Amino acid sequence: MLATTIHGERDIRFEDVPDPTIQAPTDAIVKVVAGCICGSDLWPYRGENPITAGDTIGHECVGVVEEVGSEVRAFRPGDFVVVPFDHCDNTCAHCQVGMQSACVNLGMTASGQGEYTRVNQADGSLVKTDGTPGDDLLPSLLALSDVMPTGWHAAVSAGVRPGGTVVVVGDGAVGLCGVLAAVTMGAEKVIAMSRHEPRQKIASAFGATHLVAARGKDGANEVKEITGGVGADAVLECVGTDDAMGTAFAVARPGAMVGFVGVPHGVELPVRRMFQKNVGLAGGMAPVRRYLPELLELVTSGRIDPGLVFDLTLPMDEVAEGYRAMDERRAVKVLLRP
Amino acid sequence: MLATTIHGERDIRFEDVPDPTIQAPTDAIVKVVAGCICGSDLWPYRGENPITAGDTIGHECVGVVEEVGSEVRAFRPGDFVVVPFDHCDNTCAHCQVGMQSACVNLGMTASGQGEYTRVNQADGSLVKTDGTPGDDLLPSLLALSDVMPTGWHAAVSAGVRPGGTVVVVGDGAVGLCGVLAAVTMGAEKVIAMSRHEPRQKIASAFGATHLVAARGKDGANEVKEITGGVGADAVLECVGTDDAMGTAFAVARPGAMVGFVGVPHGVELPVRRMFQKNVGLAGGMAPVRRYLPELLELVTSGRIDPGLVFDLTLPMDEVAEGYRAMDERRAVKVLLRP
Repeated sequence: MLATTIHGERDIRFEDVPDPTIQAPTDAIVKVVAGCICGSDLWPYRGENPITAGDTIGHECVGVVEEVGSEVRAFRPGDFVVVPFDHCDNTCAHCQVGMQSACVNLGMTASGQGEYTRVNQADGSLVKTDGTPGDDLLPSLLALSDVMPTGWHAAVSAGVRPGGTVVVVGDGAVGLCGVLAAVTMGAEKVIAMSRHEPRQKIASAFGATHLVAARGKDGANEVKEITGGVGADAVLECVGTDDAMGTAFAVARPGAMVGFVGVPHGVELPVRRMFQKNVGLAGGMAPVRRYLPELLELVTSGRIDPGLVFDLTLPMDEVAEGYRAMDERRAVKVLLRP
Repeated sequence: MLATTIHGERDIRFEDVPDPTIQAPTDAIVKVVAGCICGSDLWPYRGENPITAGDTIGHECVGVVEEVGSEVRAFRPGDFVVVPFDHCDNTCAHCQVGMQSACVNLGMTASGQGEYTRVNQADGSLVKTDGTPGDDLLPSLLALSDVMPTGWHAAVSAGVRPGGTVVVVGDGAVGLCGVLAAVTMGAEKVIAMSRHEPRQKIASAFGATHLVAARGKDGANEVKEITGGVGADAVLECVGTDDAMGTAFAVARPGAMVGFVGVPHGVELPVRRMFQKNVGLAGGMAPVRRYLPELLELVTSGRIDPGLVFDLTLPMDEVAEGYRAMDERRAVKVLLRP
């Protein structure tokens, strides 16, 4: 099949690789209908994460079940499915408490930017739609494979409550989905820290009540003003850098929680500040499967439209241009069609 | 008056100092009936925190109101009161959400190991008992000024729930009170990590279901066994060292929270592990006043007896021996009577 591979820093190719095959009776093969590029794909793209040259890349997709292993009961070829980037059996002790991202049978989508991908633990992982969705719904369904549940997880981890004040640090697609999550959960003030106009527009479309373009101390001071000197009840840290984490703790009120979902790179947590201000931290890799039923209902009922984060669609064989566009911040998030 | 002062490393004296006086109309002066030594007093005692030679020390006490400022409405001389170590107005934006330890008018008991102490924000801080308690109730009431609400805060911060599995790291008086808190909140398994027999006995008296004497990796492995390989739902870190924090994260199941209440000394938080396992951290200085009404009811009704943490009572003029006994771990916690 054709799939996206990474060969080195800023070296993305779309090329022939072996077809994925059923390796365990719980596997399924999904024919990708739409995939996309994740902000976290930019870490290896920029040479900041180690890679193995020639590996496939891409962990977000939706598609149609092509083939299932002998133990797969709930799906059959032809089903249209959302593929959570983290595959789980949805039955182990961790899954049972909603921590599917720590499943004892954890798997990962490995070729979501290719023609086909293997899903481990198909029965536990996949969620099918009611019939085959129209193209208009594709972007929002695709957003459910990672970016929207990840923003949602940030909001859950930060303890967002109806009527509360929320700050979202990071205006990438995850941060924008964090805005949408906080608004959907009923937060009264949702402050998006963003200085890029196209992203500000999406944040506003998602219901952000305030935009703060300033960063660092200035940005924190603006948040303090908006919150009457108190700070935010909940903060979503959706970047993963030390600066972003510092801002998150700076804008949190005493007793607040910071929900973090950006893979930490060079982050040193300010443990004494956390102690002195009683500001907690929770989050991590999103248990996508946990949130999928609720989010799928929100999408299909038209209550949320997370697909707005896609501002560039490319044929999959132009994937390298997609990476460039995101790397250079010309695009928020790129959707790929085979 | 006579009060305990610190002059240097392991140099504790009981000597004449100026009487505390009403300095603001919201102040009260409390005549100390019982005070005690806190584990955190050992940091400056051991030279690990900076001090100003001659300063009074001691922030835990109960006593009788001696004098009140002109704006104090709820208390008058003769009232027997529990004095939270952290004084608050109990009305500011932080107090209103239960974060009294971040009150905009925060104050601290400064001479709880002396004959008298000043309380800032008396109306917001103090809680009076129903009449003058008998000596039998004194230890448990005294425990409410810091150690018991601090253990309680660890349990609240860790999200202890009925039926859950809780690990308590640290067998000092705070850790033991954490055990009592977790048991009182309905946890089913409460695992106390303790290797000292007298402390193990108190942990068991407080309702610990398991004792783990091993430390580090061995201790974590024992906890894993007890929890069927899963780990704890909630972990109370009641020490403040890097080792203790490491153990806390090692025994936490994915999705768990670590509640921390030991002032961190040299702690580096394992941010990547926290992310990978979705283990959060929350806590800090306990908002004592928030918990006092509930805890006072639990004590006066006889449901909890946190005073068991006191295993040595000394006249206040022997306070230096009290510090030595705690420093050398001959005593868990020392009660002082003027």
